[in-house]
Amino acid sequence: MRVAVVGVGMTKQDEHWHKSLRDLSMEAGSEALKDAGIDGKDIQAIYIGNMASGRFVGQEHLGALAVDQAGLTPIPATRCEAACASGSLAFRKAYLAIRSGEYDIVLAGGAEKMTDIKGQGAIAALMGAGDQEWESAVGLTFTGLYALMARAYMSKYKLSREELALVPVKNHKHGLNNPYAQFNYEVTVEDVIKSPLIADPLRLLDCSPITDGSAAVILASEKAAKKFKNPVWVLGSGQASDTLALHNRKSLTEIVSSQVAAKLAYKQANVKQKNIDVAELHDCFSIEEIIAYEDLGFAEKGKGKELLLNKETYVGGRMPVNTDGGLKLGHPVGATGIKQIIEIARQLRGDAFNQIKGAKIGLTHNIGGTGATALVHIFGSEKL
Amino acid sequence: MRVAVVGVGMTKQDEHWHKSLRDLSMEAGSEALKDAGIDGKDIQAIYIGNMASGRFVGQEHLGALAVDQAGLTPIPATRCEAACASGSLAFRKAYLAIRSGEYDIVLAGGAEKMTDIKGQGAIAALMGAGDQEWESAVGLTFTGLYALMARAYMSKYKLSREELALVPVKNHKHGLNNPYAQFNYEVTVEDVIKSPLIADPLRLLDCSPITDGSAAVILASEKAAKKFKNPVWVLGSGQASDTLALHNRKSLTEIVSSQVAAKLAYKQANVKQKNIDVAELHDCFSIEEIIAYEDLGFAEKGKGKELLLNKETYVGGRMPVNTDGGLKLGHPVGATGIKQIIEIARQLRGDAFNQIKGAKIGLTHNIGGTGATALVHIFGSEKL
Repeated sequence: MRVAVVGVGMTKQDEHWHKSLRDLSMEAGSEALKDAGIDGKDIQAIYIGNMASGRFVGQEHLGALAVDQAGLTPIPATRCEAACASGSLAFRKAYLAIRSGEYDIVLAGGAEKMTDIKGQGAIAALMGAGDQEWESAVGLTFTGLYALMARAYMSKYKLSREELALVPVKNHKHGLNNPYAQFNYEVTVEDVIKSPLIADPLRLLDCSPITDGSAAVILASEKAAKKFKNPVWVLGSGQASDTLALHNRKSLTEIVSSQVAAKLAYKQANVKQKNIDVAELHDCFSIEEIIAYEDLGFAEKGKGKELLLNKETYVGGRMPVNTDGGLKLGHPVGATGIKQIIEIARQLRGDAFNQIKGAKIGLTHNIGGTGATALVHIFGSEKL
Repeated sequence: MRVAVVGVGMTKQDEHWHKSLRDLSMEAGSEALKDAGIDGKDIQAIYIGNMASGRFVGQEHLGALAVDQAGLTPIPATRCEAACASGSLAFRKAYLAIRSGEYDIVLAGGAEKMTDIKGQGAIAALMGAGDQEWESAVGLTFTGLYALMARAYMSKYKLSREELALVPVKNHKHGLNNPYAQFNYEVTVEDVIKSPLIADPLRLLDCSPITDGSAAVILASEKAAKKFKNPVWVLGSGQASDTLALHNRKSLTEIVSSQVAAKLAYKQANVKQKNIDVAELHDCFSIEEIIAYEDLGFAEKGKGKELLLNKETYVGGRMPVNTDGGLKLGHPVGATGIKQIIEIARQLRGDAFNQIKGAKIGLTHNIGGTGATALVHIFGSEKL
């Protein structure tokens, strides 16, 4: 059975000091319903991605919070969690629930309120995505983990510090006019390499920010989708796992879960990498966009930087990546996977703010932690 | 498509000072595989229920932890959360995933390590199941919330303090020989009403304990189930929601989500309440077992106590409830829904330690918080 995305909505990615987690969730959900042209009572189930609201704001049971606040009880609500991949995870579970025949119209959303926690609390909460016993407990941070990956990659494949900076340079450029982006300014290679050092070699401008935000999409079964204008079809969905701790991997310069999830999604969608017109890749830290190019088959191993040097992944290039600015311009962790899906849905509907002309097939890639969870989704436009 | 439970395993419910969350998860998973007579490599996906490991032990991303520790990467792993209903939620998502055609053999588990948090931390972490802004923030505890329900019920339906004590008296009796129970002793009505007051009218022996533990079951599609001995079939699965905060409900003496989830499950299973031979009901606090009798149609409204007074819900009675001792003898919150399913599966296979002769249809009822989430599952034996 085919499943479509028929509505999208999100909040601005920002430090939302005057909004709570429930406010943010409602805003995104309402926008998605409005975009789909339906009412809350048309929704049969809710799936919500959230990483760490227990630690961030003292609230678990996010599914119940969302369905209650929306006034949609008694429909079922489910929270899914796989760290920074929680949004895509919720999307995939909603997709499988429709495919099972249980529901026809489902809302899949994601939300995270990250700024309400004091001091270094956000850093500690985010390390819940890694291995508590073997990584967090010895003081590693997520920037530290990706710094280890960056150092290994730079050494093995002769990637220079300046070349690595091309990722945030591109993504800031892409997000310049994105009304939902946390930042709207361009950065130069010099800005990046002179920004404060966080975990050598990664600097402040290599890192995605701490963000409050929420995003939601409406999914519909093939039958139900007929009622909607401009559905975007889910062509493939892949999910895979890798070791939780980085030290258990055979290689620090690739993420096996990304490779496996991509393979599953390409196979189900029956498309090849070269068919992808536009993609959202998980650029939590600059090095990961380059590794993702290679894990997903956009570039040969070690050659990822060429896509940047040749501007192939820029808007206007052969295969634009992170046309909304990516995670670099907002990473409300539980919502991130859904916001990626929204950007691809908009590109395939033709109403993205950085519209890629004639885009017909798009891809999202979302990972949790250092890739212990990876999800890849492939979407096709109605005109496909 | 029909789905069966083909293997079960769990740890003792206890204060496991020498085992970590990952140790507990592995123990239950291994037991379930052994019981099913299969190998880890036969599993195609993992679903894990966990409420608050971020706050309890600093670890989110529980799906990845489980699949990694089991050596089963790169298969996909998903954490589901709905407070104390997380285990049943994971089970239902695994069930829907099989029904979608995506997988044939899936492990659904639950785990919680609750004793590693300091001081009053567990009480605060558990309040993440309630409404943080409207309940936790003003100092309500979960015992406090259920005490409000108990007081309303006792006043409205003339339930005496002594009659309320019959719930833990029965459940302690049932769990006396349960090797997996946290406590193995009987209590009297006098013991209960003289135990320390926690939140008036609820006393220590009205409350489920803080428990470490894990539980796992193996689910198989109809086709795959043919290879297994003694499958137990999922006849019905219902999930529903109610308001997160108690004060938003029309009544404090019933839980609408339980009623709706039960209705959905009965309808799908095409059975009536009178057909149920044995049930596990969510007795987190003594009052909730009585309310559940009524929400699930085992007794008329206000008459729940009669099932206890007439010993109908005792082993040997018309419809035994909590034959393993229920949550009263162990409530590792994320694992609880799965342990309930294990008890019913064992009853229907014929190898429970408090075996109900000829039991053919069983039911589990698992709620999150004060019932903002409810799940009801109905199972049937192979001989049905």
